[in-house]
Amino acid sequence: MGKVPRILSWRNMLVLSLAVNFSLILRILKGTDGGNSSYVVSIWPVVSNSLDRTVYGDSKWPVVSTTASGSSSLSSASCNYNETQEDDERIINLKLGDPMVYERYWQEMGHMTTMVIAGWQSLSYFSDNNNELCWFLEPELAKEIVRVHKVVGNAVTQDRYIVVGTGSTQLYQAALYALSPHDDSGPINVVSAAPYYCSYPLITDCLKSGLYRWGGDAKTYKEEGPYIELVTSPNNPDGILRESVVNRSEGILIHDLAYYWPQYTPITSIADHDVMLFTASKSTGHAGMRIGWALVKDKETAKKMTEYIELNTIGVSKVSQLRVAKVLKAVSDSCGNETAKSFFEHSYDAMFERWKLLKQASKTSKGFTVPDFASQRCNFLGKVFEPQPAFAWLKCEEGIVDCEKFLREKKNILTKSGKYFGDDLSYVRVSMLDRDSIFNIFLHRISSSFNSTL
Amino acid sequence: MGKVPRILSWRNMLVLSLAVNFSLILRILKGTDGGNSSYVVSIWPVVSNSLDRTVYGDSKWPVVSTTASGSSSLSSASCNYNETQEDDERIINLKLGDPMVYERYWQEMGHMTTMVIAGWQSLSYFSDNNNELCWFLEPELAKEIVRVHKVVGNAVTQDRYIVVGTGSTQLYQAALYALSPHDDSGPINVVSAAPYYCSYPLITDCLKSGLYRWGGDAKTYKEEGPYIELVTSPNNPDGILRESVVNRSEGILIHDLAYYWPQYTPITSIADHDVMLFTASKSTGHAGMRIGWALVKDKETAKKMTEYIELNTIGVSKVSQLRVAKVLKAVSDSCGNETAKSFFEHSYDAMFERWKLLKQASKTSKGFTVPDFASQRCNFLGKVFEPQPAFAWLKCEEGIVDCEKFLREKKNILTKSGKYFGDDLSYVRVSMLDRDSIFNIFLHRISSSFNSTL
Repeated sequence: MGKVPRILSWRNMLVLSLAVNFSLILRILKGTDGGNSSYVVSIWPVVSNSLDRTVYGDSKWPVVSTTASGSSSLSSASCNYNETQEDDERIINLKLGDPMVYERYWQEMGHMTTMVIAGWQSLSYFSDNNNELCWFLEPELAKEIVRVHKVVGNAVTQDRYIVVGTGSTQLYQAALYALSPHDDSGPINVVSAAPYYCSYPLITDCLKSGLYRWGGDAKTYKEEGPYIELVTSPNNPDGILRESVVNRSEGILIHDLAYYWPQYTPITSIADHDVMLFTASKSTGHAGMRIGWALVKDKETAKKMTEYIELNTIGVSKVSQLRVAKVLKAVSDSCGNETAKSFFEHSYDAMFERWKLLKQASKTSKGFTVPDFASQRCNFLGKVFEPQPAFAWLKCEEGIVDCEKFLREKKNILTKSGKYFGDDLSYVRVSMLDRDSIFNIFLHRISSSFNSTL
Repeated sequence: MGKVPRILSWRNMLVLSLAVNFSLILRILKGTDGGNSSYVVSIWPVVSNSLDRTVYGDSKWPVVSTTASGSSSLSSASCNYNETQEDDERIINLKLGDPMVYERYWQEMGHMTTMVIAGWQSLSYFSDNNNELCWFLEPELAKEIVRVHKVVGNAVTQDRYIVVGTGSTQLYQAALYALSPHDDSGPINVVSAAPYYCSYPLITDCLKSGLYRWGGDAKTYKEEGPYIELVTSPNNPDGILRESVVNRSEGILIHDLAYYWPQYTPITSIADHDVMLFTASKSTGHAGMRIGWALVKDKETAKKMTEYIELNTIGVSKVSQLRVAKVLKAVSDSCGNETAKSFFEHSYDAMFERWKLLKQASKTSKGFTVPDFASQRCNFLGKVFEPQPAFAWLKCEEGIVDCEKFLREKKNILTKSGKYFGDDLSYVRVSMLDRDSIFNIFLHRISSSFNSTL
């Protein structure tokens, strides 16, 4: 250790030095660089119309999240949703669940999860020689996935195989590949109860696979023979906790549990299903990392899922995996800290505040309704509460037939029409996860009159 | 800027501070952490047999690359391939092109490409609001892709759309999705001249798509109507520069140019094709990042490719993109440095040395041959040389019928049989990209007798 006293190891010095980096980065961002803001758009451009391209969101690179009035909310538990000075012409896009609501928390915790990667790291395709099955899974990520599920108590991990994917979207396709018959029996039907996640039909049918095909609403599914049922719980778009509905002997289940976290819904039991999908995008807000994971009971299924990811993308970004491992570690660590609010308590509070305001707006305006949820006790947070989902499944009232069109044309709010979810035009899905400033504008606009001739 | 003199800005201080980090990381790694080596395996486990699982490679986390004799080669231009003290029982795996040969260069340059990522960065799905087409492409990566192609002169970028993918494997599938007819005309045939990249048939047919299907060897393809031809140039496995072979009016071409870089082949012209695929894995050695890019002439094709990547993985890891942007910047910067060897000169030297030794071994042993290549002038390096591919397409002589079996059973070397490339059992594909120590053992073993009763 040379001349450095034992009490200050090279590791201690590295931590100190990284802290200096962090403060310098902050300084630079607050200084000249902080002024260079560019616009973020919250859309999937290819599947959207040209109108979407004119949409602008919040500053792309804010050091602090700001309310519409411009005041900093970095250290406050929630923003001030009452102050609104907005430009009514500005189009806001709440079509998609871009999880920017989490930005503020990670800004506050930033130094804890700062990662340094050298140029020679992660050259190889391979992550883990000791993993007999998923050779591209970083051991550190596997460890933190097991830990966070144990801490939260939302899913069984013992005797489960972990398969990592480029988001849970890739894992959904990996599961279809693994669970479909590969003989000549023709494509297996894939069903889900409406309203179902709007991307499922598109993903399932995009390559006209001979292995599987979209079979529609599970509630009206009558065909004989094997089928795959997707159970999204809490459900996207409506946030309801779900179970399978077809319930026939030849059914194969995939459970999409992307939203089964305590900021969205009470954790009432430890989920224990054959194939369970999770994602960093909705658990911690790190959508840009494109990391999802599957907890799989059957070894052969996990092996086939791994095979799909090999064929599709030859594994999953190692640096994204290491990044998410570090974030999950910070999340689990925060749950053991009795002096400060945990990540989940912080996120719960943010969602609670938003849902409280949305419900108030619904009562005041009478122009729309949101689902009624039953309260349940959350084993993790130790209290009784109603679900407060990542999306609001909003129904236009006052005789408005096409809710998406009404909100777009009369309120300059972009949402996703109920028709894409196998449901009615009077419904829309609205993201509850955008930045405070955007949510604020949304709230302001829907609180005013819904009278319309549309 | 407070009390800091103008000459030393916060940015300067950040650079200095990062340099301190780097030296501390090195110090720690050389200290207690450096001793914790774990084994890397160079296989695709699911598609491999159980024997593969026992294979071990080099130390996973060496600060310096070492030769088989254990001496450091961090600062030398090439390792000493003559000194070999090996365990003949050790199985070495050269089935796949894991690009560990580049590790040494990036260790030397490490401080230049060290990246720091804070926990609140890259939360959003979106990378670029100004990109009308590929919304998940990081602008910094786009800039460095254009720059490196301009510096090397290996591909046209002007008036081309860039689509980023999770490796070029995903982009290959995106191109198939984009270029196949989506009407009811049935699957289009996808062909490539044998020996073709062994993964192409597997990827093409894995989902039994109704859009496209594997059509086999382009050289014997006779069917009427539209088809897609894959032109891999230089070719994987044999390193030959290629052009399309079917040449009918209804042909659609995809050019896989993963190996069209000056360390592998003379850059004789600026490639100018409709769809050109590249990857970080083989250009800079960063396979673990899973980043590829396509240069696409037609806007609608690029749009459809983007659509596929949206459906398949909702974009591409942002942190991997930023990592590769930084690496490409270092590569381009190195080409303008007249006092030190550029990345490509360094890599060229490494490949030149390996091929020289392999050819010598071929002459000495007489048990195997490698392809003959014609010399050409490289516009980038400004000299005449023969291709020195990433793989050796090795043919067993001496009456050995099954070359893969012979090398596995008699030499403890795992390779990929010619049969997977649409060719003969007497051929194998051998990676030329593993670490010095592994290449050294390979060379030693194949220099000895090939007499066999197999």
